Order: sequence, then C-alpha cells, then structure tokens
Amino acid sequence: MTHTIITSASKEVIIGFDKPFCIIGERINPTGRKMLAEEMKNGDYSRVEADALAQVAAGAHMLDVNAGIPLADEPRILAEAIRRVQAVTDVPLAIDSSIIDALEAGLSVYQGRALVNSVTGEDESLERVLPLVKKYDASVVAISNDETGISQDPNERLKVAKRIIERAADHGISHDRIVVDPLVMPISAIATAGRQVFAMLKVLKEDFKVNTTCGASNISFGLPHRRAINAAFLTTAASYGMTSAIMNPLHSEDVVAVRGADVMNAVDPDCRSWISNYREPAPEGADAGARGGRGERRRRRG
Amino acid sequence: MTHTIITSASKEVIIGFDKPFCIIGERINPTGRKMLAEEMKNGDYSRVEADALAQVAAGAHMLDVNAGIPLADEPRILAEAIRRVQAVTDVPLAIDSSIIDALEAGLSVYQGRALVNSVTGEDESLERVLPLVKKYDASVVAISNDETGISQDPNERLKVAKRIIERAADHGISHDRIVVDPLVMPISAIATAGRQVFAMLKVLKEDFKVNTTCGASNISFGLPHRRAINAAFLTTAASYGMTSAIMNPLHSEDVVAVRGADVMNAVDPDCRSWISNYREPAPEGADAGARGGRGERRRRRG
Repeated sequence: MTHTIITSASKEVIIGFDKPFCIIGERINPTGRKMLAEEMKNGDYSRVEADALAQVAAGAHMLDVNAGIPLADEPRILAEAIRRVQAVTDVPLAIDSSIIDALEAGLSVYQGRALVNSVTGEDESLERVLPLVKKYDASVVAISNDETGISQDPNERLKVAKRIIERAADHGISHDRIVVDPLVMPISAIATAGRQVFAMLKVLKEDFKVNTTCGASNISFGLPHRRAINAAFLTTAASYGMTSAIMNPLHSEDVVAVRGADVMNAVDPDCRSWISNYREPAPEGADAGARGGRGERRRRRG
Repeated sequence: MTHTIITSASKEVIIGFDKPFCIIGERINPTGRKMLAEEMKNGDYSRVEADALAQVAAGAHMLDVNAGIPLADEPRILAEAIRRVQAVTDVPLAIDSSIIDALEAGLSVYQGRALVNSVTGEDESLERVLPLVKKYDASVVAISNDETGISQDPNERLKVAKRIIERAADHGISHDRIVVDPLVMPISAIATAGRQVFAMLKVLKEDFKVNTTCGASNISFGLPHRRAINAAFLTTAASYGMTSAIMNPLHSEDVVAVRGADVMNAVDPDCRSWISNYREPAPEGADAGARGGRGERRRRRG
C-alpha cells in the first residue's frame, strides 16, 4: 500500500488509499486576494496566521502555502509565511510556487518533510525541482502537463505522469513520494471532464500505485451552486481512488463530502471520525421517524 | 444500453446508465407515519395528494406508492391511493406492496406501465409476482434476498439477483424490465456495507446489464447527520452505476447529490438541468473570487 508521508516538526500525515482523504487547505494564496497580497508584501502575516488556524479548525489535515505576488520578493515572502504558519499550527505543509528559488527558500526554513507543489513534465521543471525534492527529503505534487500544455487526451496526461515518476526515480525519489495531479477541467466546458479524471484515477491507483491530488474547485468553474458540484466531484473522485485535494476547508459542504466519502470507502473505522465530528448538535432529530422506513421493513421481511 | 421504461398515461421515464439518475419519491408510505396511516384508512387522501405534489415539485421523477397499514384493506386503499396520485400528477409510479392482491389491485387501476415493487428470490414471490408483471406489461424491482434471508456475502446476493432475472425470462420478462435492489445495510453496523454494494453495482451494470435501485437512507441508520451520509452514498453509488433510488426528494441534500452525480457522470448534457435548477438565486455570489484561484493560474501556466 502506497503511503506518502508528510511531516511537520511534531506531526505526520499519511496520504494513502487506506487512509482518510487528505484535506489540503488552499486559502493561503494571494492569487485573487488583493488584500492578502498587499499585506504579505508589506510584511503583515496576521491574515496568513488567521487563515492557517481557521482552516485547521475546519478540518484541514495539511495547508498549502503560496506567496505568488507579482513583482514581490516571492522567495523571502514564502519563507516567512512558512515560518509564521509553522509557529501557529503543527499540520504539515505544501510549499507552493512555480518559482524554483521560492521553493528552495521555503524548503530551507521548513521544519519537517514537506510536500513540494509542484513539478510538471517540462524538462526545466524536472531538472530543477526534483533535485530539491531529493535534497530536502520531501514529496512532490506532479502535474500532468508538459511543454505542449495540457493534453485533452487523458492517455497523454497519464504518459506525462509516468515520465515524471520515472524521472523522479532517476533522482532517487520513489513513487510513494509522488502525488499526481491529473488536472481537473471545468465540467461546464468539457462534459467529460469528470469521466476523464475518474478514468485516470483508476490507472493512477491500480497501475501506477501513486497517490493523487487536485485543485478541486476547478471542476465547477462557470456553474451555479459551485460548492455542491465540488462536493459531488470530491465524493466521486474519492470513490475512484483520489487520496487528497487542495480545497477550501471553510466550505463545509466540501469537508462533509470528503468525510462522507471516507465512511463510504471504509477508511473511517467504526465511523469514529464521522460520529465525533457530527454528533453535536443532532442535526437530524426530526428524522427519527425514518427508522420505521423502507429499509427497516425490508430487514424484518428478510 | 439497457433502458427500463416506466410510463403514466402521458409521461415516460427511462431508467438507464446513459440517463439522469431516477429519483423515486418514497414519502407516500404509511410505515412509521401514524397520521397518514389513519387518514388513508379513513378514506382521506389529501395528504397523499399533497405528498405527491410536493415530491414532484422537489425533483422526483417517479413516486413510490405504498399502503401497508396493519389490519386495513390494503388492496382497496392502494388502488385508491394510486388513482388519487395519478389524478394530481403525471409522473409514473412504483406500486409498492408485499401483498400480492394489493399489487394486483394497484396494477388493475394504474394508467401506464408501472414499476412493481417488488419481487424477491423466494419461490412464492417469484411464482406470484412475475405473472402479474407480465400480465400488466410492467417492470419490477428485484430484491436480492430469498428464503434464507439477506446474505452477508455479496456474491450470494448476486446469485439471488441472477436467479430472479432468469426466472423473469422464463415468464417472458426481459432483463431491461428488472431493476435490481442489491440491498443496502447500515454502514454504522457493517463498515464494508458501502463497498459491498459498490462491488455489486459494478457486476450488475457490467455483467448483468440491469438497472438498479435501493432504499438509500438505510445506509445512514444509526449515524448522526444522516442526510450527508445519504448524499455521499448516492453520489458514490451513482459513480458505480446505480441508476435510481427510492429516496426522500424533500431532502434537498440528497437531490443535489444525485443531480451533481449526473453532472459528474456526463448524463446531464451541457449541465442544462443543473443550471436550470440552480441558476436562481445565485447561491455562490461570494465565490466569484475563486475564479482567480489555483486552477486558473495553472491553466495559464500550461
């Protein structure tokens, strides 16, 4: 069974097919958040810290930290953000940048074994990111696109994933340290966007035996009631073997979907997490009558 | 592609792997509803009619009608309930009873081709229900238990389903007129209850090529926040090929889960149903910022 182990100074998260779905909080990301970007640029990390605490309280097992601010000193800001987040929480982190120097700056201050987010199938990315992953004993998100962009053909995307896994092995990084992102397209634009990903997840689990992640909210782009689409996607993806997602834990619909999937997939032993998370207050008190419903009658019949 | 066709006088519902998940409203059932039972017994069908209208308004494609009231004249009451429901709605019905005379009374007044709910693998049931299904040109829910009860072994339950399909064929009823209920157990008691059903659904779809249904809320018996568990179950089951469920359409969480699954499984062309159901009022206005999130950045990158 493939286990991807991500740690902080005091805590370990295992991503795996036999483990609860790993919720990686996406909120610490200045993209599209002007105020946060401005604050981080000016050395004010109070919102970063608050976002970290709120996401962990809401159920995040890990946090993604991104400092992609145009024209700012990303390496310095990312490193500082990581220091601040690690000072207020003990969950392991994903260090998220497309700038190699920023990844290295983040890794150099990180306490534990991080998840590097990300490497692509592009040669430059492979040659520069994989040595860092090896040097810092980290794991890495492998995004299944390359110089030619994102293929619309899932088999092409799987080939890219395979190439990344092989190149990582050349660098001494085993497949259990690769978390593949099959790339989720908006289902409003591509009707088979879900089916594509689900088919890829099956291969990634059964043949490649690697863990998987994605930017889950991409699926619902352009649709109304996005959170419900995200929830349906997360539940379905988990049933096909997706083991983590970079998502917003402050959206309770998405968190409940993931936890419900854990119950369905029998990775929440005795429903203990479910019961402890949702026991109080009893939201279904009015439903007690359901006990006399169809199922019960049937069991008596049988 | 297997199509199970259920009709009313003016409407047709097709249950199939390439069709939207069929929501069969479960509310018209006096089991555990004392007031409804009392009213039906006394010839007052106003609540039956109101329940019919409310369920259709909430998204039910079909309605299950049950009149199982202890010591009452079930054949007469079931027939009358069916007449009343058909007078106020045009959705096709499932005629639900474990009493053969009641099934026949219901079928004799029904306008259209009904879904008979149900036949089991027990010899008496097979020999008495299947001729009725044939006579009235109906389809039938096949419950995978027999004289020995409900097996804990999914393979045994599949054998029962297979026997029912074969016996139906002997009566001139083709497999597209059989909707198998694999029987859903409470996941709080049996941790693999979900996995059992999902494995069965795969066989029922790929090998037996039959449509499927279930009493969905059984899965969550004994757990808090039941509707969220039902939603996770419905979404997951749909991903494994379940094509209908007998469920409560007044639980919006369950309906949204099923409709979300339709989007995921690419059986809601261009997301038209989703958009028309959830366009107004815009529930995710606050989420517009998400457009600048992770996915967007990535697509630009690629």
